[in-house]
Amino acid sequence: MISKNQLKLLRALGQKKQRKAHGLFLVEGEKNVLELVETSLKVKQVFATSDFLAKHASELRAYECIEATLDELTKASSLVSNNAAVAVVEIPQTDAPEPKGMMIALDGVSDPGNLGTIIRIADWYGIKHIVASTDCADPYNPKTIRATMGSFGRVQVTLLDLPRYLNEAKIPVYGAFLEGKSVHTTNFSQQGILLMGSESHGVRAEAEHYVTDKITIPAFGGAESLNVAMATGIIMDNYRRQHS
Amino acid sequence: MISKNQLKLLRALGQKKQRKAHGLFLVEGEKNVLELVETSLKVKQVFATSDFLAKHASELRAYECIEATLDELTKASSLVSNNAAVAVVEIPQTDAPEPKGMMIALDGVSDPGNLGTIIRIADWYGIKHIVASTDCADPYNPKTIRATMGSFGRVQVTLLDLPRYLNEAKIPVYGAFLEGKSVHTTNFSQQGILLMGSESHGVRAEAEHYVTDKITIPAFGGAESLNVAMATGIIMDNYRRQHS
Repeated sequence: MISKNQLKLLRALGQKKQRKAHGLFLVEGEKNVLELVETSLKVKQVFATSDFLAKHASELRAYECIEATLDELTKASSLVSNNAAVAVVEIPQTDAPEPKGMMIALDGVSDPGNLGTIIRIADWYGIKHIVASTDCADPYNPKTIRATMGSFGRVQVTLLDLPRYLNEAKIPVYGAFLEGKSVHTTNFSQQGILLMGSESHGVRAEAEHYVTDKITIPAFGGAESLNVAMATGIIMDNYRRQHS
Repeated sequence: MISKNQLKLLRALGQKKQRKAHGLFLVEGEKNVLELVETSLKVKQVFATSDFLAKHASELRAYECIEATLDELTKASSLVSNNAAVAVVEIPQTDAPEPKGMMIALDGVSDPGNLGTIIRIADWYGIKHIVASTDCADPYNPKTIRATMGSFGRVQVTLLDLPRYLNEAKIPVYGAFLEGKSVHTTNFSQQGILLMGSESHGVRAEAEHYVTDKITIPAFGGAESLNVAMATGIIMDNYRRQHS
């Protein structure tokens, strides 16, 4: 059973301010909760149905598990109905990653669903690090975590002073613009940072200043733009066909 | 002002059964409504704020326009707050497209947001026709239309007996599977059908039967799958780098 205080905490963690105050975030959904086992993240508690706990007893043996009904879990979650499992997890302390290998940088991408989808696509293409301007969506927003479809444990997202980070990086910065060199003919270097802007504002001037190569996804029809997560996926695919 | 009967109709058109009964669908949002001008779709009425109507008087001159407050429009819409314009549009009668050029076929893609995103990406890559199994999302669902970001008028989606269509097509059928030939090394023919299945079921056996080439997007990291719209975009980009 979920106690009143536990329910209060679970609901509070839907808010960024509360996540920061408690140093905790929520991982919702069966697949995401099971992914935790593969990570080094510190799990405080797992709330789940008796069915889920019985089925995954061995994977979850290291965690404090609290049995709850589907109804209780649905009430505790702001997100999904029929949510069989929710975990409360410590927000890890991470340092800004050293600029090396291939990375993704996000400038003002404020939609948590887009951020989560970008984390998922980064994981598909084996990108370990995303750096993001401080006004990007919170990587620990439950909507972000859900959209990662389990990839949140394999990709580190660091919010930081993006222009400064790009300035100090010694590797190429590929900026995605509506006008740039086609990704079909770009020679990507082995190491680099792919810089994506938001759909509404694009890459802003402060970050654009450090772009070494402007690139674009060639268009063949009438659509004016692509969703930022879609564009990230297509560009990463073009990079990976050159550097696997 | 929106009359009671008009409000009743607007709300009814959120439901598939009612859209079918009336032969009408909703186009919501400023950008989407303005896109109508570029299409041959028959617009019954445009409900919009006085600001919107004044600003776009010349584009909208051929339509019956009804002024409404933002509050009224928000009440009439199931989707968006701050919706400055909604149009009621006739569902066009379309025949199944002849299998030629490059096309997209969808098998059991039931999420309207995914369908709308696929319409948008089809439009980006200049694909005019999508054929879809009858259990796919309704192309006239307001959520589908919204996700197209204005591309709904340039891409025709036809729900039909998909296995039969694929059987009768005389062009290659490229089926997306988790195991297949890498799209990075596939030689795409000029004409073909890209067949995508749903995230939960993949391409089903009835449609798989007619696949001539199994293809896959190579993975480099830990994610198990990609969203169907994302995968469609990445594969279309690989096709277009060979045939522009």
